[in-house]
Amino acid sequence: MKIKSKTPNESVSQMMELVLPNHTNTMGKLFGGKLLEWIDMVATLAAKRHCNESVVTAVMDSVEFLNPTNMGEVVELNSCVNRAFKTSMEVGVKVFAEDFKSSVRTHIASAYVTVVAVDDEGRPTPVPEIFPETEDEVRRFSEAALRREQRLKE
Amino acid sequence: MKIKSKTPNESVSQMMELVLPNHTNTMGKLFGGKLLEWIDMVATLAAKRHCNESVVTAVMDSVEFLNPTNMGEVVELNSCVNRAFKTSMEVGVKVFAEDFKSSVRTHIASAYVTVVAVDDEGRPTPVPEIFPETEDEVRRFSEAALRREQRLKE
Amino acid sequence: MKIKSKTPNESVSQMMELVLPNHTNTMGKLFGGKLLEWIDMVATLAAKRHCNESVVTAVMDSVEFLNPTNMGEVVELNSCVNRAFKTSMEVGVKVFAEDFKSSVRTHIASAYVTVVAVDDEGRPTPVPEIFPETEDEVRRFSEAALRREQRLKE
Amino acid sequence: MKIKSKTPNESVSQMMELVLPNHTNTMGKLFGGKLLEWIDMVATLAAKRHCNESVVTAVMDSVEFLNPTNMGEVVELNSCVNRAFKTSMEVGVKVFAEDFKSSVRTHIASAYVTVVAVDDEGRPTPVPEIFPETEDEVRRFSEAALRREQRLKE
Amino acid sequence: MKIKSKTPNESVSQMMELVLPNHTNTMGKLFGGKLLEWIDMVATLAAKRHCNESVVTAVMDSVEFLNPTNMGEVVELNSCVNRAFKTSMEVGVKVFAEDFKSSVRTHIASAYVTVVAVDDEGRPTPVPEIFPETEDEVRRFSEAALRREQRLKE
Amino acid sequence: MKIKSKTPNESVSQMMELVLPNHTNTMGKLFGGKLLEWIDMVATLAAKRHCNESVVTAVMDSVEFLNPTNMGEVVELNSCVNRAFKTSMEVGVKVFAEDFKSSVRTHIASAYVTVVAVDDEGRPTPVPEIFPETEDEVRRFSEAALRREQRLKE
Repeated sequence: MKIKSKTPNESVSQMMELVLPNHTNTMGKLFGGKLLEWIDMVATLAAKRHCNESVVTAVMDSVEFLNPTNMGEVVELNSCVNRAFKTSMEVGVKVFAEDFKSSVRTHIASAYVTVVAVDDEGRPTPVPEIFPETEDEVRRFSEAALRREQRLKE
Repeated sequence: MKIKSKTPNESVSQMMELVLPNHTNTMGKLFGGKLLEWIDMVATLAAKRHCNESVVTAVMDSVEFLNPTNMGEVVELNSCVNRAFKTSMEVGVKVFAEDFKSSVRTHIASAYVTVVAVDDEGRPTPVPEIFPETEDEVRRFSEAALRREQRLKE
Repeated sequence: MKIKSKTPNESVSQMMELVLPNHTNTMGKLFGGKLLEWIDMVATLAAKRHCNESVVTAVMDSVEFLNPTNMGEVVELNSCVNRAFKTSMEVGVKVFAEDFKSSVRTHIASAYVTVVAVDDEGRPTPVPEIFPETEDEVRRFSEAALRREQRLKE
Repeated sequence: MKIKSKTPNESVSQMMELVLPNHTNTMGKLFGGKLLEWIDMVATLAAKRHCNESVVTAVMDSVEFLNPTNMGEVVELNSCVNRAFKTSMEVGVKVFAEDFKSSVRTHIASAYVTVVAVDDEGRPTPVPEIFPETEDEVRRFSEAALRREQRLKE
Repeated sequence: MKIKSKTPNESVSQMMELVLPNHTNTMGKLFGGKLLEWIDMVATLAAKRHCNESVVTAVMDSVEFLNPTNMGEVVELNSCVNRAFKTSMEVGVKVFAEDFKSSVRTHIASAYVTVVAVDDEGRPTPVPEIFPETEDEVRRFSEAALRREQRLKE
Repeated sequence: MKIKSKTPNESVSQMMELVLPNHTNTMGKLFGGKLLEWIDMVATLAAKRHCNESVVTAVMDSVEFLNPTNMGEVVELNSCVNRAFKTSMEVGVKVFAEDFKSSVRTHIASAYVTVVAVDDEGRPTPVPEIFPETEDEVRRFSEAALRREQRLKE
């Protein structure tokens, strides 16, 4: 029996990226689009850890860029599956930038990504259930359902 | 006098990208995050054409990926400034994928990107007004104001 | 019946590329070779639009680099099939660089690229005829035949 | 007073990389050299976290590639400063590959990287002392001194 | 006195590039444009070796792609300054592809690239004279003058 | 009969790489990890030239970075098979950086890479014997055996 249940914690993933010259505009600030690419990648990793299947991104909820990030800073992206539905998962992503010279660490973006598990023909395929354990996981589990309703309404 | 008014048409921009192996997952489908990177770039180009300043992306509204895109297809991205506010612009982006073998052209995503003009110190700086001319431009001009209200509420 | 005739206009393609640090030499000027890569790509897109087949580049005619292009400028490449022969096409490419700060737009290169349609085994395969409509298209259609004669002589 | 002491744990860093087509040879196996590039990067991140300075890599100790890694697998790299000397640090790196379909996780390489902190003129500059806390950290702290002796002898 | 004379042999340069998935079209054949980028790079290296200055590419003469190259093959590019004029140099480039499995080595392209030496303000600056030594060098030296006349006529 | 013997000279390979912005840290110095990637590539090329098979890297011996390399310099990598064992080869790599403005050429690293020939199923497969001819080749042939003993001991 392939489908079993997992905890959110089992899907936790992390990426770190050094901001290089080709990631930045002429003022030396990280492109928003490059950050979105990394967010999609770290969300994909968490979703794959949860469902052990191929996955495709279905929706990226609205993302606000809270603070500009400079070349030479390190971007740290943390992701976790908040809730699993029948064949899709909501992945939460939180992104920080760290300036190692000053040790300053800044929250630069948060995102919710809806990812769908697919079989070898690309058709949606069931994913394991998720059981939140900590208080924080329970809160994100509940909020994910509300966000999903909102998405379906739109 | 630098600040003058422009039409949406003066900002129209287009990018075409061939989907290469490194843009795709193990099933040969374009990564959502790579598409978001291209959307941000083509929005940046339209915004720069409108304001002739450096720009930074402030918000990417929710993006739904309507259809999977295969390696070897060509992605065509079209952008245009819908409305200019004091220092920011809403750019609309519409994306198609084209399979040249079959001549099939598919709408794969639409996006609204809020871009801010900045001066050499990175501070928001005024942008030219926009005057919609065609019926379609007038409609997008009106809707942009509603979307902005919605964004500010959230 | 796959082979039919088309107009040059049906093959018109456009690419825009932002000049990033890795595209430039130590003086911040765009490498000629990177520009040639983009020219080949936009010629490939126009040729694919015309013939709906796989294509390979056979000859790039001499290219003169008319003006240096700086990092941060946007390169706009426009292409169109000038004339179709039995299995090959001559694609014309015109390239501009745009400095958004000053709104200055400069013609930086023109190129003629001969592209061959190939089947799944890589053998040359017939392409649709082309019927020029505008005065400009008729002129380029005639000149393409002269350039082909010149190429065969060499 | 800038120089203070830190624990190894404060330098812990993690990168995850999806193995894409351009990272692999014609048999679809990850290039050893690409893995070495990632090892150097994750070592650099740990060293920067420890010393809050610019750093340069001085020595990469011998690396054995224990298992081949396939395209589509995810490489997870974990790093930590084992010991700080006057201006240099020994960073330990442990690398795993994860095949999400089968949930199999394989140890593919370990490495010790000697990294030097440098000031704005590129001259070696002092780094904070390190105080190992756990039993494991104490063991790696001791072994790092032996490896350093060995390196100096060679 | 900076300007002195050199032999063609002092500028000889070589690059080898493995053909990776992102360098090829959907049929696994090397893009012509990627090859042109490498040709420009190896010509730049030879020109820099001759003049010890910054250089920019002025003209790439017509290039014919003689044979298709497959993914996994190795492209070897050899370049040498054929003749130096007042501020420009003609660099000859000869390109081979090598299939290591079969040991077959194929001539895939030849090119003549005109490269200009520039000072820190980007103005053309004198280059050392060249003195051909071998019979082959003398022949290329003579032919370069004829090709230059042809270019100026066009 | 596929397996025959070759000389070290038949495997000699060379790569030249221009140091671009994305290859360097915030101080404009080449990343050690990027250099290791190039070393692995040039070692792979020499090994393939010797055995005409697919190859995988097994061990990269300790590498010391002797001198920092600046953006805009050209890195020249030379490789050659020192000795062939049953299914593996020791490849020696010597790396120089060249600053064309000053004509200064610096030895920046040396490396020994153990590469294994593999068949289509990825299993080790015999390689041709090697016969050193020059005095220098004989010395490297002998030393390779000593280094191999040392590696097996560790």
